[in-house]
Amino acid sequence: MSSDGGGTLVVGLSIPEIQGTLIQADAAFYDDSALTHLLLYTSSDAAFLLQEARADGFDYITCNLPKSLEPRTDVTSLDSRWWRTSIVGRMETPSMQQMEWAQHMNIPAVLLPEVSPRDVDTCQKIASLALVASASNGQVWIQTRLTEDSINAFDSLHRFCDGASNVGMMLTLDNDVRDVGNDAQTLVARQVVLLHKAIGSQLKAICFPTSVFLTNKRGYPALSKTHQVLFTEVLGRIGKTVRVLLEGPSKHEVGECGKTKCVPYLQYIRHLRQRPEIAQILDSPEASLEEPYLDQLQRPLQPLADQLEFQTYETFEKDPVKYLQYQKAILAVLRNGVATIQGNPSQTRITIMVVGAGRGPLVRVALAAIAELGTPLNFHIYAVEKNPSAVIYLESLARYDASWKNAVTVVHSDMRQLDPHKLGNAQADIVISELLGSFGDNELCPECLDGLIGTGVWKDTTVSIPSSYTAYLAPVSSMKLHSEARAQSFFPAKPTSGGLDSAPMGVQCAMETPYVVRTHAASQTHPEQRCWSFAHPPVKRDKERTCHLVFQPDPTHGAGSGSGYGPYDPALAAIAQSMSTADAGSISVHGLVGSFEAILYSGGGEEITISTRPKSFSVGMFSWFPLYFPLKEPLRVPGGADITCSVWRRTETNSAGSGRVWYEWSARVTDAMGTVLGQTHIHNPNGRSYNVTL
Amino acid sequence: MSSDGGGTLVVGLSIPEIQGTLIQADAAFYDDSALTHLLLYTSSDAAFLLQEARADGFDYITCNLPKSLEPRTDVTSLDSRWWRTSIVGRMETPSMQQMEWAQHMNIPAVLLPEVSPRDVDTCQKIASLALVASASNGQVWIQTRLTEDSINAFDSLHRFCDGASNVGMMLTLDNDVRDVGNDAQTLVARQVVLLHKAIGSQLKAICFPTSVFLTNKRGYPALSKTHQVLFTEVLGRIGKTVRVLLEGPSKHEVGECGKTKCVPYLQYIRHLRQRPEIAQILDSPEASLEEPYLDQLQRPLQPLADQLEFQTYETFEKDPVKYLQYQKAILAVLRNGVATIQGNPSQTRITIMVVGAGRGPLVRVALAAIAELGTPLNFHIYAVEKNPSAVIYLESLARYDASWKNAVTVVHSDMRQLDPHKLGNAQADIVISELLGSFGDNELCPECLDGLIGTGVWKDTTVSIPSSYTAYLAPVSSMKLHSEARAQSFFPAKPTSGGLDSAPMGVQCAMETPYVVRTHAASQTHPEQRCWSFAHPPVKRDKERTCHLVFQPDPTHGAGSGSGYGPYDPALAAIAQSMSTADAGSISVHGLVGSFEAILYSGGGEEITISTRPKSFSVGMFSWFPLYFPLKEPLRVPGGADITCSVWRRTETNSAGSGRVWYEWSARVTDAMGTVLGQTHIHNPNGRSYNVTL
Repeated sequence: MSSDGGGTLVVGLSIPEIQGTLIQADAAFYDDSALTHLLLYTSSDAAFLLQEARADGFDYITCNLPKSLEPRTDVTSLDSRWWRTSIVGRMETPSMQQMEWAQHMNIPAVLLPEVSPRDVDTCQKIASLALVASASNGQVWIQTRLTEDSINAFDSLHRFCDGASNVGMMLTLDNDVRDVGNDAQTLVARQVVLLHKAIGSQLKAICFPTSVFLTNKRGYPALSKTHQVLFTEVLGRIGKTVRVLLEGPSKHEVGECGKTKCVPYLQYIRHLRQRPEIAQILDSPEASLEEPYLDQLQRPLQPLADQLEFQTYETFEKDPVKYLQYQKAILAVLRNGVATIQGNPSQTRITIMVVGAGRGPLVRVALAAIAELGTPLNFHIYAVEKNPSAVIYLESLARYDASWKNAVTVVHSDMRQLDPHKLGNAQADIVISELLGSFGDNELCPECLDGLIGTGVWKDTTVSIPSSYTAYLAPVSSMKLHSEARAQSFFPAKPTSGGLDSAPMGVQCAMETPYVVRTHAASQTHPEQRCWSFAHPPVKRDKERTCHLVFQPDPTHGAGSGSGYGPYDPALAAIAQSMSTADAGSISVHGLVGSFEAILYSGGGEEITISTRPKSFSVGMFSWFPLYFPLKEPLRVPGGADITCSVWRRTETNSAGSGRVWYEWSARVTDAMGTVLGQTHIHNPNGRSYNVTL
Repeated sequence: MSSDGGGTLVVGLSIPEIQGTLIQADAAFYDDSALTHLLLYTSSDAAFLLQEARADGFDYITCNLPKSLEPRTDVTSLDSRWWRTSIVGRMETPSMQQMEWAQHMNIPAVLLPEVSPRDVDTCQKIASLALVASASNGQVWIQTRLTEDSINAFDSLHRFCDGASNVGMMLTLDNDVRDVGNDAQTLVARQVVLLHKAIGSQLKAICFPTSVFLTNKRGYPALSKTHQVLFTEVLGRIGKTVRVLLEGPSKHEVGECGKTKCVPYLQYIRHLRQRPEIAQILDSPEASLEEPYLDQLQRPLQPLADQLEFQTYETFEKDPVKYLQYQKAILAVLRNGVATIQGNPSQTRITIMVVGAGRGPLVRVALAAIAELGTPLNFHIYAVEKNPSAVIYLESLARYDASWKNAVTVVHSDMRQLDPHKLGNAQADIVISELLGSFGDNELCPECLDGLIGTGVWKDTTVSIPSSYTAYLAPVSSMKLHSEARAQSFFPAKPTSGGLDSAPMGVQCAMETPYVVRTHAASQTHPEQRCWSFAHPPVKRDKERTCHLVFQPDPTHGAGSGSGYGPYDPALAAIAQSMSTADAGSISVHGLVGSFEAILYSGGGEEITISTRPKSFSVGMFSWFPLYFPLKEPLRVPGGADITCSVWRRTETNSAGSGRVWYEWSARVTDAMGTVLGQTHIHNPNGRSYNVTL
């Protein structure tokens, strides 16, 4: 290692593409994809060091930014493409002159030391630097340690910077584990919880000092069990976007050492990355498909006003879990109910209505369930669909597909205005629908099925699949989602109107809209709680709902629930659980994350469900991402404090029969004495910013 | 050819990538890159035909959009990825139901027949369809013929559609050439001029009916000379973005014919595309570099407020013409002037000042010119630069580069505030600068060099390189540039300010800003004319200017000047010239295009220039794209009418010495009697929308 002046070496490696070329790295940096780094703290020639580092398989180095216009040889010897792809600039104290030079060179990220929130002057300087850097997509990374104080200091700095999306954390996993006097189990628990918090706090890079590596029997470097647990968690959660670094001079000059002498560390980190439990999370086809959606907010559908596209139907029909569950539910209904139905001498055949049939996947599984039943069944299926373009598809199947011919009648109608004559006045024995949204009822399933009841095709014995569904909610900490929501303010309020007069929606509207999003750089902070339920036929006519959920201090800070999407991790939660409630620190909450659990059918000892809430997640099902309700300003929840979330489902129908549905929400933080420590306003009063048209 | 029902076949081919795969085609369609098409007019099974067409090497087919929800087999047999990449939908009359289906399928373009501007009801319907299509990036192509009436009809429709960026022209090159009674030369001239007009009029695709193909001696298809001229012009001008199609049943079933029997046409079109004169335009490294800039508007530099980035310097230093011309000019000054200078006994050495030195390219060519002089020269170079980040680079060269050591002194200063003490009170024998903008003086070269004079380093005998420069202007017809300018209205007014409060600039500001742009889908409509000049030392102190240019009817409609960027084409202009002024039709003008011609040095019988105006374009020079001054609303210029363009250069200096410079512009159309047929308002009065800070 040829570092001059006693410098410290930091090296790192790419997560998704260990052997990524520089050209890919260039694009990837701005795509927020993971990269390889080699950071060298003190150097007078970045050109020379970059060459050595690249020869060893690293992509990046750091170098100190030049002070007071000092001449340097690397400035003239290294082309711009290297500066803007392979150099992270290091600054000892915030300097506008250095930041302007970094911008001039298009250096993608600048690294700064941790700053205490009490040092407001330095925070003010960093806020200025971050604003300058943002003009050219430059990032500012703050060196942070895995301690309560250090992460809180970053949280505070980030608030001072008004939630700047380009200010992120480089988390150093150093030797704290051994230095603290607590017992080992609590120690690991604390680290796991802190890491969970960091993932919601703009964790851009993770850094291992070479000093934390142990030595294995053959003399090679290896991480302690604790560091392996932490690193595995980082990879599994945000391995697609995080950068990994190694810092310090080599202590393990074994095997093929390369010019930087840090190759053994690189090999070890690669080995961890390639473990099957990580590879199956990061390298699956599903992970690749999901990648463009990570933390990307989508405005929720207007299911009654918008027509789905052909491709959207096609994609969702491929869900490997959802339609299997529907088929099971239909089969169960047929098994449990057909005898009863056909026992009635006035009824000669089973009438199945698929309402909102789209391109017919539920017709397909109904036909499959009937075939699976194994006994001949006198039945007819009505496929009701409002989208005229989808009706062309359904009609084409009804005319040309052998299994559909004579068995299926396509009805082009909004289910709420269904004319019973078009169905020969048949009433439904089974109504099958898939109108659920990310929050269960948010795509107006309750209103649509109630509308269907009003048309007279529903009878006392009609069975609905789904039979009921429940919305769930949890607070979420995510600087990333919060800044993405704020960035929506620039988008046109009416994205589909085209033309030149579509004004941007503005901050108020942006922060009072719930978004469908694959939460990723996010941490659910408490176990989710039940909001409300709907059943079909309905228990009560009123479709307005209110719920107030008190989330009490949770020692795990919700670590087992990850980002709020995907299955709960009981093993990790068990580790975190060994920390006491009293030890749990504070956290920032940036919004609420909504999910649902639906019972498709319950009867005859069977219950067939689908779920997106972490505690009961249907593994493999991809049809729904969570719903993110932003809070306009993040709420600070100190250790030991409660957060109470209120959500209202409101409806409005005008005399013409049309109307709208919307949610309102707020949150409040109280300490053990009930003193209010913080609260938000009520978001979206009267549906002023967002509502769904009936 | 297996088309059922007497259908007409249309096939086409890709220009940049003849063998492009479908995956590339997908992205390319939305990138506006050229593609291969196979269009089949009547078909009941797009799936079958697409398979045959792809086997023959075509990428696309057209199919009729389904009427009134008719069931079809291809709807269920063809996956969405084919519909959204390989199908162009055909509509006989505007139908919202068909458009909604096309949107549902994500069909990238829909084809509609020509519409007469008198049929306002149909225009209104197409305007509605285009708005719907725009929501999903769908294009609407109007079938147009190469006639005055047909192109005017499209122009009128496009105005009715408020300049919609997704409404384009599919131009059919049919047999009109033979049908018209005029003499052949005028006929070709007219077609060339009409094509020039079409290129500024959203020409998205060009279509050859198979009936226009002649048969060569070996029985293979070939185009007439006229069609070859026209096609070559299309390829050379917009070959990177246009789609080419073939229409009709095969008349040449020779050689390897494929399933569609249209392979011989495909082979012939590929042959024309691969001719060296086309390949050298479209396949050069320069063309690839330029591609992302075609018709992309850039807001002009604020040269005194903004600091250039490292990479920008690096790119522009690679200009193969500009610095060669500078070196020639410096050498000429030294040869012609050094004897005089050194003959003066009071002067011991030549002082060269490079002002605005950047990373030092002019220092480099000055050193090269001195070396080329061949005689020893006592000289010193001062490199004056205001950008502190560039100064680091200059200082690094001055310290570490052998040829710079002791020969070059770097001075960190704005040239207008240069302290003569920093130069040992030296006065300049030669001042070298490169402060010219796309319109000559628009980056404030006059003000900066005048500021330098004010510092006292300038003497009576000081020679300036450049010595003078002249701005040129011409009207330009380009629906594309006009819609790009309007789209700027959504961009933040202050792009560099970051944060959430940067409001969009709005239409007024967007249309009163001149933009730097590589004009492409644009047609300069008249030969450019001289606006004004500046010289150094200045002839007069006043730097305000006014000019009124009358552009009289031009039978060629400026065809030889192309898009207003690149060298004038005298051969093409000569063809167009054979049309009489009386025959020249009307045209829409969407703005003005500015360029410049600079004399770097004139003396001793030599004149060394650089130029971006078409008539004297410095071939190979890439440092400047034209400046586009939008007109808020397009101006219609009937045949025989004059267009008078007025431009003002205005300056304002406040008592503190700072100030600003801006342009105002307007245009007016008058007939031969002087009657005003149309006019614009004065754009950017008092610099309300755009100005350059001093």
